[in-house]
Amino acid sequence: MPVPGRGELLIRIAAVALNYRDKMVIETGRGLPLAFPFTPGSDFAGTIVAHGSDSDRFSVGDRVIPHFTPEWIDGRRPGDARTPAYRTLGGFYPGVLAEYVVLPDSWLVKAPTTLSDAEAATLPVAGLTAWFALVERAGVRAGDTVLIPSTGGVALFGLQIAKAHGAQVIVWSEGDMLDKARAIGADHCLDRDRADLREAVYAITGDRGVDHVLEVVGGGHLARSVELVAVGGHICQIGALDGFDLSAPAMPLMLKDVTIHGIGTGHRTALERLVRAVDQTGLKPVIDSRYGLAELPAALDRLDRGPFGKIIVEFG
Amino acid sequence: MPVPGRGELLIRIAAVALNYRDKMVIETGRGLPLAFPFTPGSDFAGTIVAHGSDSDRFSVGDRVIPHFTPEWIDGRRPGDARTPAYRTLGGFYPGVLAEYVVLPDSWLVKAPTTLSDAEAATLPVAGLTAWFALVERAGVRAGDTVLIPSTGGVALFGLQIAKAHGAQVIVWSEGDMLDKARAIGADHCLDRDRADLREAVYAITGDRGVDHVLEVVGGGHLARSVELVAVGGHICQIGALDGFDLSAPAMPLMLKDVTIHGIGTGHRTALERLVRAVDQTGLKPVIDSRYGLAELPAALDRLDRGPFGKIIVEFG
Amino acid sequence: MPVPGRGELLIRIAAVALNYRDKMVIETGRGLPLAFPFTPGSDFAGTIVAHGSDSDRFSVGDRVIPHFTPEWIDGRRPGDARTPAYRTLGGFYPGVLAEYVVLPDSWLVKAPTTLSDAEAATLPVAGLTAWFALVERAGVRAGDTVLIPSTGGVALFGLQIAKAHGAQVIVWSEGDMLDKARAIGADHCLDRDRADLREAVYAITGDRGVDHVLEVVGGGHLARSVELVAVGGHICQIGALDGFDLSAPAMPLMLKDVTIHGIGTGHRTALERLVRAVDQTGLKPVIDSRYGLAELPAALDRLDRGPFGKIIVEFG
Amino acid sequence: MPVPGRGELLIRIAAVALNYRDKMVIETGRGLPLAFPFTPGSDFAGTIVAHGSDSDRFSVGDRVIPHFTPEWIDGRRPGDARTPAYRTLGGFYPGVLAEYVVLPDSWLVKAPTTLSDAEAATLPVAGLTAWFALVERAGVRAGDTVLIPSTGGVALFGLQIAKAHGAQVIVWSEGDMLDKARAIGADHCLDRDRADLREAVYAITGDRGVDHVLEVVGGGHLARSVELVAVGGHICQIGALDGFDLSAPAMPLMLKDVTIHGIGTGHRTALERLVRAVDQTGLKPVIDSRYGLAELPAALDRLDRGPFGKIIVEFG
Repeated sequence: MPVPGRGELLIRIAAVALNYRDKMVIETGRGLPLAFPFTPGSDFAGTIVAHGSDSDRFSVGDRVIPHFTPEWIDGRRPGDARTPAYRTLGGFYPGVLAEYVVLPDSWLVKAPTTLSDAEAATLPVAGLTAWFALVERAGVRAGDTVLIPSTGGVALFGLQIAKAHGAQVIVWSEGDMLDKARAIGADHCLDRDRADLREAVYAITGDRGVDHVLEVVGGGHLARSVELVAVGGHICQIGALDGFDLSAPAMPLMLKDVTIHGIGTGHRTALERLVRAVDQTGLKPVIDSRYGLAELPAALDRLDRGPFGKIIVEFG
Repeated sequence: MPVPGRGELLIRIAAVALNYRDKMVIETGRGLPLAFPFTPGSDFAGTIVAHGSDSDRFSVGDRVIPHFTPEWIDGRRPGDARTPAYRTLGGFYPGVLAEYVVLPDSWLVKAPTTLSDAEAATLPVAGLTAWFALVERAGVRAGDTVLIPSTGGVALFGLQIAKAHGAQVIVWSEGDMLDKARAIGADHCLDRDRADLREAVYAITGDRGVDHVLEVVGGGHLARSVELVAVGGHICQIGALDGFDLSAPAMPLMLKDVTIHGIGTGHRTALERLVRAVDQTGLKPVIDSRYGLAELPAALDRLDRGPFGKIIVEFG
Repeated sequence: MPVPGRGELLIRIAAVALNYRDKMVIETGRGLPLAFPFTPGSDFAGTIVAHGSDSDRFSVGDRVIPHFTPEWIDGRRPGDARTPAYRTLGGFYPGVLAEYVVLPDSWLVKAPTTLSDAEAATLPVAGLTAWFALVERAGVRAGDTVLIPSTGGVALFGLQIAKAHGAQVIVWSEGDMLDKARAIGADHCLDRDRADLREAVYAITGDRGVDHVLEVVGGGHLARSVELVAVGGHICQIGALDGFDLSAPAMPLMLKDVTIHGIGTGHRTALERLVRAVDQTGLKPVIDSRYGLAELPAALDRLDRGPFGKIIVEFG
Repeated sequence: MPVPGRGELLIRIAAVALNYRDKMVIETGRGLPLAFPFTPGSDFAGTIVAHGSDSDRFSVGDRVIPHFTPEWIDGRRPGDARTPAYRTLGGFYPGVLAEYVVLPDSWLVKAPTTLSDAEAATLPVAGLTAWFALVERAGVRAGDTVLIPSTGGVALFGLQIAKAHGAQVIVWSEGDMLDKARAIGADHCLDRDRADLREAVYAITGDRGVDHVLEVVGGGHLARSVELVAVGGHICQIGALDGFDLSAPAMPLMLKDVTIHGIGTGHRTALERLVRAVDQTGLKPVIDSRYGLAELPAALDRLDRGPFGKIIVEFG
């Protein structure tokens, strides 16, 4: 068992939440300068079992979750134009799919008291990304309309966070995902293959358009977001399922006074605020399925087959 | 001579500043529902010579300039997702290339006291667009670096407004435009055909990148802006010289926490603030050339030949 | 029955909500330059029964509520340092305690579809003030803690609006008001006479303090708000029950990076957003009691005796 | 000579700028839990002469200045409602009036290249406080009017920073301080004993009032700031020369939509931005007088006699 050094903590992992990114790191390395043997995984909940000297933010027995971009504490993100910040847990830094990890205490925050370990493990990547986009950047508020064109991990958190702030949520998806989204609070669930999606959104909003889009699709889909967003609205560019080359028309962007926010998770202070919001509102992250560590291959397979909610690997 | 009705003012035009848009409206109508005979032109400075009843914002003798999007007084812009606001002076509404015009008094603001009529006429479109982008949306401040990849009308105002706030300005252009830009305050003037533009900008900013880009080029150029912008930086999408289909890579946008602002001029309160800023800082708009009304064809031709500053039509 | 002129609407009043200010205007005139006979009252809900020419924002049959500061549409409030804006409905302008009123159409917004007339009538003053403070100025979000040291009209809206955004609410009051506040969602209800109020708030927030205070008490109470507010927190200065001379210690204000917002209702765009929020979240304004027009003296008396919620005068 | 440990740097001090606070700490301790022997002083410029392991933000030979509140890197300030952050250099932490100091590398930023050591030493407290107030909180911009009712250290930086952003500055002071303020750029210098100060400010601003007040006087002076500030204006509460018990009238605060910002210096990212602004704009801090270390008593005396600019203690 590793020993925590100065400013470090030894944590016993209870649950790890998988992200599609973990699968990509495992399969391709994503071009990152990894040190082998490499441990994947970014999202966990665990309990502190020992601490090194000069570590006073936590006590033995505290339940914690990690911060995915550990150097981004608050305010401006580290990095520069030549080298954007890329040092993440389970990417540049070794990951957390392990029974024990040692981490600097500045890399952690307390887990919500109202969530199980499996639930808490889902917050650091998917939860924080949706929170940072909608709350800290786009400023969602009661009565706003939020368009979420997906039912992936960030999308479902976006749905729940928007509802917790009193917003109206429109989800685009397909098949039984629509019913599942409705069951957790979506106000309007539209089949993404409808020919009249645009008119449907205009009808729901009385032509006003949507105040916020969680743009998790990317590629040419940004054009659609620009078309549907309200005057003065916000588009949070979060994902690139359809490709990393974004395209959109200039005129509606300019005439509608639209703001596009590039989102790459968020800072630690925001994660602490998300934890408080979860405890206050009773928000329960959606879990698709749970696996033991020995079932990791099956868990990774499940990532490809359109889960509704997060996939959890549980430890003893 | 027209007679002002209730809430209206009769204005004698002294100078009109041309915009490339005027040429397009004259040549193609731009698809707008114009009533003929149509008077083009949006930017003027003039003097109030008579007022109708219920018009108390101005007095006879006041020098005024118009507000290009007259219904956008402050705060949120009018319009909705289906029909963005398109009602502009010299577009939907009849324009101002005339000796006298009658306008509602809510469509006007007082001209700066420190500018000539020709200079004041340049503010409503080019001046306000640069001001609204850099000051009201992007929040430029002393010590910031601003990239301006052009020497067009909005670009030159951007340069002067950025300098008035203590920022460092990098201009991209070509030929003798570079010297002219330097003469009015640009800190760094780079030939747009240099193969090492990216490295040059990284070198100037110590790899930090630029805090703001005035993106007046559009099309695929947005990709370059995303590449050069600093972490936490702002890109103001203003123009589309290279095309109305924007494209850009998703990853640096997301990893660098970048904000893109769609800009389509600005509101009347911002124009009033620009007027105060001009009077306070002594900013003098750049004028390329002056013509009489009879020389309008020559003036419009000049628009195509790369003027450095605004082209003015002066009235008797 | 009055006839609407150009740009005006004739409205049949259904319900008027009283404010303590109405009583003061009736009794003292509050130093305002009133024209007699003067009609008091600011808050109503009614139905449009006729419209003059050039009035196209509404149709006959639309249910509407008024905007209390009619010249403040959006953005910056009118007025200057010498003469702050004071032109309000039922103050400078004639009021609405009448069966029919004629108003300019720019002074109105559509009533929420989910509220009765009596409920809708409560929004323009008390509802908008709480909304503008917490949402548009202080930016309340899920997980924040809001301190509301009263159970007056603005206070109860503050409570409901904070809850609609997922915040935790602490109310200070006395007697059975505490139970009533709990019944509509307050998380913590503290007797204002407790000697240990400060410690109680520190305990609830884990010493963090409260993110927002709705300061409706005024006078020396601001000192207490400064003491209890969190680092980086917001105090909305709204009311002056304890006096118009505010006092507070400088050191905690400075060391805790606190922001104080002076709040005097809000603009029309914000009222439109409040209406959407009410319809989306199902927020129901609290009504204390209802009276007929003939019972106006009793209704005004009731204002003095600590109502819990708004007092309504209903019209046939 | 002390030896730098892990993450620490050894710095040779070149110049220390005195603050009135230093005098108070020396004379009274200010109630801080000081460890004796205690070294006072917070502001310096110096050169790195050695570094410990794990310290890579700086190299030997770099000129640096310290950050006064070392734990406040960016975003939200540390501390809570019960215990606001009070750990400052030369207060809770030992100070810098010494030939050599050892400090953690996270407590430092690079000095501006365009300033001498004496000039650079003035930035961390007085410079950062004025910058954080006007630029990061109040958002000063060209054409704004800033009222600065003093010629103290923070006040003069406020004057220079406002001018660097194109603002108009009104200074209140007395005697030859008025001429000195004019010489460094103040647009209007008013004797603080004039009976018509209010009317003078209204006249300068055309009744609009001032957009920003650097409230360094405190006590009952806040009432005057509230009276003179424009609708939508900002008051930065910074100092308390006239007392720590602030008082102000509620009505104009509320009717004018005023924001009061409690200011207690600023974070390290802001100090880095100030350094860039100084290098870009050529701002030169005002130095009143220079002393050797042996003359410290005379230097402290000078603090009491109304210096114009900062007092510097120079080392070898």
